[in-house]
Amino acid sequence: MAASFPEIIAKKRDGKELNDEEIKSFVSGVTESSLAEAQIGAMLMAIYIRGLCRREIASLTREMTHSGTTLTWPSEWSGRLVDKHSTGGVGDKVSLVLAPALAAFGLKVPMISGRGLAHTGGTLDKLEAIPGFRVALSAQEMVDILSSVGCFIAGQTGDICPADRKTYAIRDVTATVDDIGLVTASIVSKKAAENIDALVLDVKTGSGAFFADTERAARLAESMVSCSQNLGTKTVALLTDMDSPIGNMVGNALEVVESIWCLQGRGPRDLLDLTCSLGGHLLHAGGFVDSVTVGVESVRNQIDNGQALSKFRDMLKAQGVERQLADDICDPGIDPRSRLPQSKHKTEFTCVSSGYVRRVDAMDIAVVSHKLGAGRNLPGEPVNLAVGLELLVDIGDQVQTDQAWVRLYHDEPLSDHVTDRLKKALEISGEFVQRLVSRVQRVIGE
Amino acid sequence: MAASFPEIIAKKRDGKELNDEEIKSFVSGVTESSLAEAQIGAMLMAIYIRGLCRREIASLTREMTHSGTTLTWPSEWSGRLVDKHSTGGVGDKVSLVLAPALAAFGLKVPMISGRGLAHTGGTLDKLEAIPGFRVALSAQEMVDILSSVGCFIAGQTGDICPADRKTYAIRDVTATVDDIGLVTASIVSKKAAENIDALVLDVKTGSGAFFADTERAARLAESMVSCSQNLGTKTVALLTDMDSPIGNMVGNALEVVESIWCLQGRGPRDLLDLTCSLGGHLLHAGGFVDSVTVGVESVRNQIDNGQALSKFRDMLKAQGVERQLADDICDPGIDPRSRLPQSKHKTEFTCVSSGYVRRVDAMDIAVVSHKLGAGRNLPGEPVNLAVGLELLVDIGDQVQTDQAWVRLYHDEPLSDHVTDRLKKALEISGEFVQRLVSRVQRVIGE
Repeated sequence: MAASFPEIIAKKRDGKELNDEEIKSFVSGVTESSLAEAQIGAMLMAIYIRGLCRREIASLTREMTHSGTTLTWPSEWSGRLVDKHSTGGVGDKVSLVLAPALAAFGLKVPMISGRGLAHTGGTLDKLEAIPGFRVALSAQEMVDILSSVGCFIAGQTGDICPADRKTYAIRDVTATVDDIGLVTASIVSKKAAENIDALVLDVKTGSGAFFADTERAARLAESMVSCSQNLGTKTVALLTDMDSPIGNMVGNALEVVESIWCLQGRGPRDLLDLTCSLGGHLLHAGGFVDSVTVGVESVRNQIDNGQALSKFRDMLKAQGVERQLADDICDPGIDPRSRLPQSKHKTEFTCVSSGYVRRVDAMDIAVVSHKLGAGRNLPGEPVNLAVGLELLVDIGDQVQTDQAWVRLYHDEPLSDHVTDRLKKALEISGEFVQRLVSRVQRVIGE
Repeated sequence: MAASFPEIIAKKRDGKELNDEEIKSFVSGVTESSLAEAQIGAMLMAIYIRGLCRREIASLTREMTHSGTTLTWPSEWSGRLVDKHSTGGVGDKVSLVLAPALAAFGLKVPMISGRGLAHTGGTLDKLEAIPGFRVALSAQEMVDILSSVGCFIAGQTGDICPADRKTYAIRDVTATVDDIGLVTASIVSKKAAENIDALVLDVKTGSGAFFADTERAARLAESMVSCSQNLGTKTVALLTDMDSPIGNMVGNALEVVESIWCLQGRGPRDLLDLTCSLGGHLLHAGGFVDSVTVGVESVRNQIDNGQALSKFRDMLKAQGVERQLADDICDPGIDPRSRLPQSKHKTEFTCVSSGYVRRVDAMDIAVVSHKLGAGRNLPGEPVNLAVGLELLVDIGDQVQTDQAWVRLYHDEPLSDHVTDRLKKALEISGEFVQRLVSRVQRVIGE
């Protein structure tokens, strides 16, 4: 006789390994609502405290993937389907640059992204700053756009990984979010449901990251790579620095602007470097190039030769943006800011001392951006697309007293909360500080 | 700012002690339903795995007691309010004898009891075998009956310890029932809500007990005594043997019969002994007598002189039983079985070998009684009042092959499940076996 739900919960409560049948029973209990929410909460807490071994994580992930529908693609694309996933950063607009660059390389990129919550920004929110952009695509539209363009960036549909969606909502209120096994299953199940061949994971570490601690982030990366490979996807992970924001822009429309600048060959160096590193490792992991170096160069080429920008423009049109607007936004002769939502006010803040910029804290900047209205506190809340911050200095820059270091884009008067937190973000050193060479700290899974 | 629910859950998840304010917040969240059931499930699992210290248990108990109304009594009874609680046994009809004996001694006994579930019998179910007996009493009726009789045995009203009721329902399905801290809070909060002065706890150990393991049962006893004393009730616990059923009768009406026999001075020796021990320790703990020995003798006297029987009769009348029926049931010249529900069939089973009775397993007997219909699987199900078992031998009895050792009272034909389990219950030894002298193994809290 199959074990009852309380028996399965008791087994994990006592630190024992669950077999595949028991994990399947738990996940289908979640999906079919035959498990009470209290039982899901208790099970998640037992998992959080007792942990899951790699086999259990793979089993949980597989069951979550198959709890709903998975995306299917024409057989002739087999081997060419790829994606990137980031654990979430501040100013992280890599997807907007990398997806079209990979499409330009000839790959198919069915990128399912999320929305922002709390201090983290969401790729979908950013794209919705472009008037007309539709993140909700049908399965047929997804196939059509991959066929004509090669990439899309869309929201999760209701029938993908329903067990993960329900579990996540419960994890969120039961202090069971930041467990490596549960995070792995949540992320990898959704990527596995995309039926892709190769995947690169951008696992953040540092002040603005989900796991600030590097070793914990590395363990998460190892867990996700192992699980994803176990499920048949060629996977590599990069552990990357999230102590300071990526690029100089933070905020929805502002990050679209910076992505377009990057695609036009005039974006910030760290954003370009991170995009090429992630893409290069993905190309190598997927077997599309012979070395990581060639992979990095290949992505870089698609940006330099304008093909990535072209794919981005095509993607905008395919996802609902008016032709003329898409052309204008991508036109190097037109300031994209003129075509996107703009804040009512701009306010600059200046350095209180001279020296070298040692730190622009990612979490402080994220909190300020959130307070300005760029983020949301609860799922479903609207976000302000226009507000945000523009950093006017980089780590290692030499600055003078009274030199402006940040420009705030805001609609409301600035509160003391905002300005106090903003002051915390900048640290100036009297001694020389090295520039940030690369955000990549470690490669896992190669 | 007060900690949020997820913060409180995270604290216990990480094995930290919760302060009184946090425990209060948790309990009021349960009571007011501002905590989601998933959060309660997660918290209970964190408590189960990480444990609660004595201060936390006392705090949880206090908050649960005050989550609803508590019973109040005329001030002139102050110091004389007492009760007994058992962790649940097989054939345990001690309450039916002890409550009237204590009332006969001059004490006030507001005994709130429960119903049977799974293998355990419930005092309320047993009393309902007496036609007309009402277990639902209003607060005013409780005062009136304590005033006129001195004791009642009634069900919990909806507004006593609502936080415990809700928590218990969740513990039941989340594998978090058998935690010492949670059991302590559940039991002691309900006794504290009775506003009694002294309490004796009968903590069972052995095959038919909630905690079969003696040391675990002892830890529970210590925890409950400490907690109850902390809340201001003079408390003592007896760790008692539950390897074999108490007395010879198991089943609702059958246990009422045996209780009346005991009150008439012709009950089984172990039932009388256990009743007097519990009562004697309670009288001593409450300061009503100078020694346990005098306490035991005092209870025994109230049974021997017929005053306890008289109080029992008065209690039946006060709780709805027709005068004539109550008189008849208690009349030593009338077989009480003739006035109570009777099963359609009786079947005796015989010993398959000769020797000494070494074991009559409490759990096996409980399961058989349950299968005959005396118990319920789900709260709210009706029970069969007439069915059950009568043991015809005691531990240590010398028996012959083919001698009847048990009589089953049943309404349906006996299934193989019943007869197979019944055979498992009896163990006969070729060697001499000592009789059971006393069920009391240890006294805790004196």
